Amino acid sequence: MADTLILHEDPCSGNCYKIRLTAALLGLPLERRFYDITKGETRTPAFLAEVNANGRIPVLQIGTGEGARFLPESNAACWYLAAGSDLIPQGRFEQADTLRWMFFEQYNHEPNVATLRFWLAILGEAALSEDQRRMLPHKREAGHAALRVMDEHLANRAFFCGESVTLADIALFAYTHVAEEGGFTLSDHRHVAAWIDRVRALPGFVPMD
Amino acid sequence: MADTLILHEDPCSGNCYKIRLTAALLGLPLERRFYDITKGETRTPAFLAEVNANGRIPVLQIGTGEGARFLPESNAACWYLAAGSDLIPQGRFEQADTLRWMFFEQYNHEPNVATLRFWLAILGEAALSEDQRRMLPHKREAGHAALRVMDEHLANRAFFCGESVTLADIALFAYTHVAEEGGFTLSDHRHVAAWIDRVRALPGFVPMD
Repeated sequence: MADTLILHEDPCSGNCYKIRLTAALLGLPLERRFYDITKGETRTPAFLAEVNANGRIPVLQIGTGEGARFLPESNAACWYLAAGSDLIPQGRFEQADTLRWMFFEQYNHEPNVATLRFWLAILGEAALSEDQRRMLPHKREAGHAALRVMDEHLANRAFFCGESVTLADIALFAYTHVAEEGGFTLSDHRHVAAWIDRVRALPGFVPMD
Repeated sequence: MADTLILHEDPCSGNCYKIRLTAALLGLPLERRFYDITKGETRTPAFLAEVNANGRIPVLQIGTGEGARFLPESNAACWYLAAGSDLIPQGRFEQADTLRWMFFEQYNHEPNVATLRFWLAILGEAALSEDQRRMLPHKREAGHAALRVMDEHLANRAFFCGESVTLADIALFAYTHVAEEGGFTLSDHRHVAAWIDRVRALPGFVPMD
């Protein structure tokens, strides 16, 4: 029997949505446990001791009881779910190239595109600290730069690693398709906009909550 | 015949060193091409067109001439080099867990531990902008938090994913072992300090330039 899969998540988080989208595209059942990060629910002693010492979600729990294992980091959880499927190319270069875009997502894209959405659409501009306010222009420019790199790459491909969907697309889709909530204009990036439509049309696709 | 492997790098970058260390542990020959990031040498039109449209190093070049392929993102380049070796566990959970630490490195560790080293030891504090200066306390605290997560995890293991070295260790070693250049105190994290000695003792180990 397959292990029970439990996603510890906040439904407003794109990082959590990546895992849910991966499971949906693969037809894998996933139980969901909800936390509100704006209320510190992932920093409680119980969460830190049992789920993730780094105090962050998402965490994918594999199995229950004493044998349960916990996998933090959204892209690593997607990798676990997609093992052996077409979402992870088997070719040596193609597999590394899939990871290349997943690392790009966490380093160049998420800290800018996702953070601006969190600050502006979830916390609200009035709640920002002076330091956060001062970082807005830098994060806006860095987020636009990431979207430009994506747009240029997608000019002559259907998906990030060629003609079929991989985890690179899932990782980048999560915060890109809601980038306008952070003040980005997707119509400036027409190849990205067309790719968003292609991801939405995938069999098994589920929207963000 | 194996493809020629060329590392486009700046020798002061820990991200570049990861790739060099992976190749050394695997006994793979690697040619090196040098760029000075403080002089904008990775933002020239030729670099952007031929090596990496994202304007960053490291980039691993595989092959030469018309068939050359380019792999940005340090951890993706390490993955390419280590394919099929013991540095990437084959078990489903163990492989995803290796990636978990590599994503942790790029998201929680590098932007804090590596950035403070770059700002304080390479650019120099006098050259920092007011915005960078204001971010120092936040980056110091976030870097310490990453080192604490690592220290706790290493309390009862030799390496990040168990009893033998994986890419998780190589990714985290690169900037951790020079963290004191960014003002962090490694003796506060004794399990991390002992792990650094274990990585240094690996057969084939090469130091950072």
